[in-house]
Amino acid sequence: MSHIARILVEKPLALDHSIELPEAQSKYLLRVMRLTDGALVRVFNGQDGEWVCSLSVERKTAVLTPTKNLRRQEKGAELTLLFAPIKKARTDFIVEKATELGVSDIRPILTDYTQSQRVRTDRMRLLAIEAAEQTERMDLPAIHEAAPLSKTLASWDKATPLIFCDEGGRSASMAEQSNRLAGKPAGILIGPEGGFSPKERDMLHALDFVIPITLGPRILRAETAVVSALTLWQSLFGDWQKAPYLPEAE
Amino acid sequence: MSHIARILVEKPLALDHSIELPEAQSKYLLRVMRLTDGALVRVFNGQDGEWVCSLSVERKTAVLTPTKNLRRQEKGAELTLLFAPIKKARTDFIVEKATELGVSDIRPILTDYTQSQRVRTDRMRLLAIEAAEQTERMDLPAIHEAAPLSKTLASWDKATPLIFCDEGGRSASMAEQSNRLAGKPAGILIGPEGGFSPKERDMLHALDFVIPITLGPRILRAETAVVSALTLWQSLFGDWQKAPYLPEAE
Repeated sequence: MSHIARILVEKPLALDHSIELPEAQSKYLLRVMRLTDGALVRVFNGQDGEWVCSLSVERKTAVLTPTKNLRRQEKGAELTLLFAPIKKARTDFIVEKATELGVSDIRPILTDYTQSQRVRTDRMRLLAIEAAEQTERMDLPAIHEAAPLSKTLASWDKATPLIFCDEGGRSASMAEQSNRLAGKPAGILIGPEGGFSPKERDMLHALDFVIPITLGPRILRAETAVVSALTLWQSLFGDWQKAPYLPEAE
Repeated sequence: MSHIARILVEKPLALDHSIELPEAQSKYLLRVMRLTDGALVRVFNGQDGEWVCSLSVERKTAVLTPTKNLRRQEKGAELTLLFAPIKKARTDFIVEKATELGVSDIRPILTDYTQSQRVRTDRMRLLAIEAAEQTERMDLPAIHEAAPLSKTLASWDKATPLIFCDEGGRSASMAEQSNRLAGKPAGILIGPEGGFSPKERDMLHALDFVIPITLGPRILRAETAVVSALTLWQSLFGDWQKAPYLPEAE
């Protein structure tokens, strides 16, 4: 069952309650995947768990009828990625990887050295949907509008630690900060190419809820730092003790 | 000094011993970077440490003269990445990230589900050079010719644990395997999209030196799995306790 199509829909899912898909998704299932009446599709909506649905075709529109609940909805970690948008392909990559690695929120931030001022959150949302469908997660990260770093920090919940991946110093490792990080929501802040400005670094180091950590002796590109930092957090404080969902076993 | 050009050369480096650069690198420094007589360039060759060199231009050829040693050569971890080549952009990404994350060897492997049979190791080498220059490492990973998985396993040094990132089961985490992994060289094996075939998985599970580990409950793309697994290994058993080299401080 892992090789059948898996899609995110924006409608409630309940046994035997049919839903019509919008044009783009109908086209995808009927023309790209070439599915026909009676085909099975796995469907989730971020709220009602994951379902097997049976497809029927009505005047070029795909209609899905939930026939079996596969998994109940589970709440993932409260983990926010804050990153400075970089070149297009690498920004795409960051959104895809953050979704695979289970973040709940993606916040683009504008910093002193941010090169890309035009932030396409609509495009990010499409990438996140595709990644969520592929990675077996049952929800979608919230994609927030881009905001300046100072504004994002000013409105940050001070009870939530913000992990600052600091290339410029001799910080502790994420594991060494376990007592401040375990069992809590968190944010992870990754700078643009060229890092943060001296002014920004001073501002970050002065905030009590900001926890600087090291990502080792080599200079990582921004998108590598995103994957490394999210991996460390998920493996130390997140849900990596859970086994993967294997639909073949159903 | 972090913003001056940093290049890998294939000649010995010693104080006051000038070297001529080949045409492509001359062109890069003189035409792309637009450097002129007296400019400073940081240079490494994987053996003689890192040097500041002074540039002179002789008949369109860049000549570099080492004037100061910045860092001694250090030996990195013995860490081999074995991966099944996937689509071009994602394979490029894997080579770049593996270099940033400090692997010593990159071995493309051909598996039952490997889609790309044409493996461009020459292209991989160029990508690794660029990443090594950018990431402040002082050597280059060795890029090996592609070989079938069975052949690679047959010639594997059985004293070196091979970490098998296994999507198909309930494996332990990398940290839980510390007693088998700490203080040793290692290999990390990442499968292609679609994972390993049942026959390959049986073969891997039957080998004593193969250690299956989990990368969490979501299905990761191959290139994400590469970055996640290398991050975990470096943070647990590698050199991430070392501070980054900050050339500004010189």
